Amino acid sequence: MKYYLGLDVGGTNLAAGVVDEAFRLLSKVSCPSGAGRQMEEIVADMAAVSQKAVRESGIPEKNISSWGIGMPSAINPATGLLVHANCFGWKNVAIYTSLKKYSRLPIYIENDANCAALGETLAGSGARCKNVLMVTLGTGFGGGVIIDGKIYAGGDGMGAELGHTKLVYNGKRCTCGQRGCIEAYCSATALIRQAQESIKEHPEICSILREKNRKHAGGLEAKDVFEAAGEGDQLAAEVLRNYIEYLSCAIANFIVVFRPERVILGGGVANAGEELLVPLKKCLLANTFAGNEIGIPPITIAKCGNDAGIIGAAMQELYGANKTKKIRVC
Amino acid sequence: MKYYLGLDVGGTNLAAGVVDEAFRLLSKVSCPSGAGRQMEEIVADMAAVSQKAVRESGIPEKNISSWGIGMPSAINPATGLLVHANCFGWKNVAIYTSLKKYSRLPIYIENDANCAALGETLAGSGARCKNVLMVTLGTGFGGGVIIDGKIYAGGDGMGAELGHTKLVYNGKRCTCGQRGCIEAYCSATALIRQAQESIKEHPEICSILREKNRKHAGGLEAKDVFEAAGEGDQLAAEVLRNYIEYLSCAIANFIVVFRPERVILGGGVANAGEELLVPLKKCLLANTFAGNEIGIPPITIAKCGNDAGIIGAAMQELYGANKTKKIRVC
Repeated sequence: MKYYLGLDVGGTNLAAGVVDEAFRLLSKVSCPSGAGRQMEEIVADMAAVSQKAVRESGIPEKNISSWGIGMPSAINPATGLLVHANCFGWKNVAIYTSLKKYSRLPIYIENDANCAALGETLAGSGARCKNVLMVTLGTGFGGGVIIDGKIYAGGDGMGAELGHTKLVYNGKRCTCGQRGCIEAYCSATALIRQAQESIKEHPEICSILREKNRKHAGGLEAKDVFEAAGEGDQLAAEVLRNYIEYLSCAIANFIVVFRPERVILGGGVANAGEELLVPLKKCLLANTFAGNEIGIPPITIAKCGNDAGIIGAAMQELYGANKTKKIRVC
Repeated sequence: MKYYLGLDVGGTNLAAGVVDEAFRLLSKVSCPSGAGRQMEEIVADMAAVSQKAVRESGIPEKNISSWGIGMPSAINPATGLLVHANCFGWKNVAIYTSLKKYSRLPIYIENDANCAALGETLAGSGARCKNVLMVTLGTGFGGGVIIDGKIYAGGDGMGAELGHTKLVYNGKRCTCGQRGCIEAYCSATALIRQAQESIKEHPEICSILREKNRKHAGGLEAKDVFEAAGEGDQLAAEVLRNYIEYLSCAIANFIVVFRPERVILGGGVANAGEELLVPLKKCLLANTFAGNEIGIPPITIAKCGNDAGIIGAAMQELYGANKTKKIRVC
């Protein structure tokens, strides 16, 4: 039996675990990321939390096959540099070289959304399909594509950045600096912004949504919009209708390109479950090219939660993109 | 030495040829498609023109390895049916079964834009790269993607329909029935429509473009817009600026997803050469996510013209999508 060490690096937490050949998570350890510190300090914690996950799994270190890492950034396989991790303020940093000091294991680094897609495909809602699209509707819009059972990361290993394809020509400014990106319309952040704009635009309507917005010191959350709509709030229902229409067009674009066997939705917005799925499927059928002639794939909610990122990161040795092999030998 | 028979089926012509292992076209024969006739009549001509190409090549029939066909439609590998060939008015027709009556060879069927991308990659501007994006700017917007040296046709073999991804949310109606498709903004047909709309919207401007539109009994062509702009016509220059901005956003979306080694432009609009390439590259750099950080791939004009479709169709046995294998055994 072989075992694989996985580490999911997020802006808030570092989460590590050991995964077996059946994609089971044998241990799970996490600690705060401590964003804002020097890279070397954070890398030391990445190594420490990973080593702790190995100890807690009870698996002898010699039986661990590789160390797979999911990072909130693209990695340039040609240089081994991490391109841009917004949450840490890192740009073109030599993460691979720093990590190598802590481990004798082969290291694989991949974008975290790609790892989540792989983890869900192997251990969750993907039902071990060979061709899967996963979108994560959280702070950003994470997109991951599995082709022929492996992560697809584009010709140079920096592709499949689905959230930064344009959906609205000349549209709203995205965090990446471009205009009209899917992320600017379909992330949880975008849904909340759309709800707040709607509250402002309609001062004449006394709604449940407005009341929730007033009460929450930390601001609205995606679930507030679903809750308000569920309670019969017209303003919230209208906000959701528009959001789901945007989201359906975004997913339709990827169905038309990838024709996956299955589409998986993850992230905070996906917690709405059927309240999201039912209207989304209806819109998708209408908004997908040839949807009525050749059908659309089944759409499901992710099952593994945050574990998907760890499992997918760990399993890169077997199911990673070709490019991760290149990073390994840098 | 092995040889491969290719057939490119278009709405106007059927063009066949024999290709050798070095991707050279040894013979080329064509005849009118005769769209509007019964399918069986057209299929008989497809077979006849292909057999003639074999005779003219001088290659003994026993040395021909397979018959590869490019069709203006997606093919459903699960059923062997051609999904929808607009120019022939065919929908869900059993093309494979009809073709099989005429040949003992293994038959591979693929979308024509995918074949053109493969042909250009092997024998033309693709310089035998492994990851290539080709877009054909003609009556429609044909997109073909080569991944790891093979045609990419999506998980179920009906994907990579790049022209029918949405660029303008809730935008203009496309020929496919959807709204805002890239085809409705970036095909040669779209450029001509944009030019004609501009002429109408500005009756006060006496321009070279308007004069060309008046003179041409058959209506404007894409090259008229480039010519007028080249002669200093402000109206034409403005039309082109807008068109190239749309096109750059469309191509940017595919660069962000596929990160190809090379982008190839084919079709009527691409005949403009540098007049298209120079402003397009500038727009692409500005409109591609992380374009300034990680760069954009080289953009070139297709070299093989109509031969690309024949060569790519022929070479499916070696470099076709996995799905074509499935059609073969239907």
